[in-house]
Amino acid sequence: MNRVNRNYWLAAVLMIALGAMPAGVSAQSKRDVEQTYVLNQPYETVKLKAPKGKKVKNVILMIGDGMSLMHVYSAWTANRGKLNLDNAMAVGLSKTYCLDKLITDSGAGGTALATGQKTIYHAVGVDAKGNPLTTLVDVAKETKRSAGVVVTCRLNDATPADFCCHNIDRDEAEAITVDYLNCGADFVFGGGSKYFENRTDGRNLFNELQGKGYQVLRSWDELAKAKGGKLFTVTDSLDLPVPAQRGDILAKASLKAIEVLNQNKKGFFLMVEGSQLDDYGHFNDLDMLMQEVHDFDRTIGKVFEWAAQDGETLVIVTADHETGGLTLVDGNLAEGKIVGKFSTGGHSGVMVPVYAFGPGAEQFTGIYENSDIFKKITALKGW
Amino acid sequence: MNRVNRNYWLAAVLMIALGAMPAGVSAQSKRDVEQTYVLNQPYETVKLKAPKGKKVKNVILMIGDGMSLMHVYSAWTANRGKLNLDNAMAVGLSKTYCLDKLITDSGAGGTALATGQKTIYHAVGVDAKGNPLTTLVDVAKETKRSAGVVVTCRLNDATPADFCCHNIDRDEAEAITVDYLNCGADFVFGGGSKYFENRTDGRNLFNELQGKGYQVLRSWDELAKAKGGKLFTVTDSLDLPVPAQRGDILAKASLKAIEVLNQNKKGFFLMVEGSQLDDYGHFNDLDMLMQEVHDFDRTIGKVFEWAAQDGETLVIVTADHETGGLTLVDGNLAEGKIVGKFSTGGHSGVMVPVYAFGPGAEQFTGIYENSDIFKKITALKGW
Repeated sequence: MNRVNRNYWLAAVLMIALGAMPAGVSAQSKRDVEQTYVLNQPYETVKLKAPKGKKVKNVILMIGDGMSLMHVYSAWTANRGKLNLDNAMAVGLSKTYCLDKLITDSGAGGTALATGQKTIYHAVGVDAKGNPLTTLVDVAKETKRSAGVVVTCRLNDATPADFCCHNIDRDEAEAITVDYLNCGADFVFGGGSKYFENRTDGRNLFNELQGKGYQVLRSWDELAKAKGGKLFTVTDSLDLPVPAQRGDILAKASLKAIEVLNQNKKGFFLMVEGSQLDDYGHFNDLDMLMQEVHDFDRTIGKVFEWAAQDGETLVIVTADHETGGLTLVDGNLAEGKIVGKFSTGGHSGVMVPVYAFGPGAEQFTGIYENSDIFKKITALKGW
Repeated sequence: MNRVNRNYWLAAVLMIALGAMPAGVSAQSKRDVEQTYVLNQPYETVKLKAPKGKKVKNVILMIGDGMSLMHVYSAWTANRGKLNLDNAMAVGLSKTYCLDKLITDSGAGGTALATGQKTIYHAVGVDAKGNPLTTLVDVAKETKRSAGVVVTCRLNDATPADFCCHNIDRDEAEAITVDYLNCGADFVFGGGSKYFENRTDGRNLFNELQGKGYQVLRSWDELAKAKGGKLFTVTDSLDLPVPAQRGDILAKASLKAIEVLNQNKKGFFLMVEGSQLDDYGHFNDLDMLMQEVHDFDRTIGKVFEWAAQDGETLVIVTADHETGGLTLVDGNLAEGKIVGKFSTGGHSGVMVPVYAFGPGAEQFTGIYENSDIFKKITALKGW
């Protein structure tokens, strides 16, 4: 059981005690039973030509937290047989097990992606002994590139922390958040302001970040106006709201990150996470899961579209693990209807696909370790 | 519900009526509950270098019936993190839906692989109107190559029939079997002698096959002695027995097929099926399913090994669909232990991976229709 799951159950127990648990929210009651979802308004997708160049100036790594093949095909069916992800030029399979467990978490799974090293369950950005590891953000900075992280969860959550922070325990929210002071990323976007400004130790990390040369922004509107420099945007106290409320902010923030980071002529590294797929996998909530996958795919469409025009950007889309053990037991392509069943409230053990678009994409086919993705990126000419 | 499933339930109802249904055989009772499997004796796998040539003289298409990513990763875990399939040089994802259903069967799914055309549910080797389609066996013969089919099921079953026969209804066992007379394959191996020699119409198709120039063989021992020519081997009345009883006959028959077909200097096409994975997916029987996946992977190892030495052979491994909705909810790599749950007694809707080894492998990465596999093969230079 990971942090999200544990917190969920704690909240659920509290809510039940208070008589406030809505019937539809119980994960247990949704497991092993059929759930039907229909996407009433399918969205348009882009059809892109594969870029012809060979030079990889920029790398964008997009992580759907807990997004496996079943989630993707369910989302594809619901959208009437169309996803932006279909533009992937190459596909590979990533083995996600960590050092001490077959079924990993976002801490160890994301650390392998961020650092090229498998570590122990629940560790973020450190090896099994707790030693800090060099991340793709560090590599970008060492090669004079810019670096950024865009997520819809709190910034101390495992996946963004894997790229910017170092702690053997992903639940050390306050300590992890402090690490952003020394992360070096030029563009950070996410939630979790509570751990920056409402801390038990009385520190205000936003003030400290300003002391480090960051412009600290607290809303999309503020970020939209920013022209460049080091931008640190935290919009919410904890996670960003559900897709219906937050709209296309993941796509907008990703494009803004690209606009700012691309000012560096040496190139950039950007990590974009579809953060909350995982939560709805844990909650076994097919409706919300599909909303999150579709939001992530629309973001993929915008990023692929930019990369296709740029021609020197490699985009890699993958996941850290699968969540929920989803099976599509029935459905109808013409109606955008899916009937799914979840098998677990946790993560499941299965390889996750790696989708690549842009120059260097062909390097990402085959079957390999999740930690090889870092190695393949850093082996690209010039990286 | 497909033929296997329907027959299973008919048999189950009969057995229950007769008080003969063993407790462990009920599929329903095994669904949505955890099953544990441990592989006590892991097997050795080969580590192969990627062949360097570009010329594709021979194509071997290996189909794991109902074998999706979850089956493969479960089998990999049980074998302590090793599969021969890991040697795949390229990976792609195949969309398996058929013309009239999101979730296909082996008739329409295999027909798409065999002919490059999607068709309707339960059709074998024909389009939606019942018109016969040109199969990869036909293409091989038209290009003066040899062609073969090796399976462990009855030869009238959907997958082999997709490559050799033409019928809009996969359940027309006797009519389908007659089509082998005009199939043109040089090497056929499988079960189902009942439909050749114990027919309601009184015909003896074995005699007729001899009249067409085939040597008809009735056991592995007879086949082992054969030197060449057109060989038609049918070892069992219906399907071949379970792996523990049939041993490594799938690997042996596949290597024998290669030995004989490779006598043609223009090359060959061979389809090899791990036929009975699908049955144990339907029965939700994790133990037997793993035995079948491991038998298929050992066969893949032998075929890859031969192809690596040959250097002019492209091997493609894929599936027609997923069966059982398997989720690996726990496990231990060091112990070869897996804990799985099945979500359905039927097929599920998910893309299936395509694994390629040998020259031309890189053509099979990306995301595409199952029918594109035929198109990619026939687009290879010289095919």
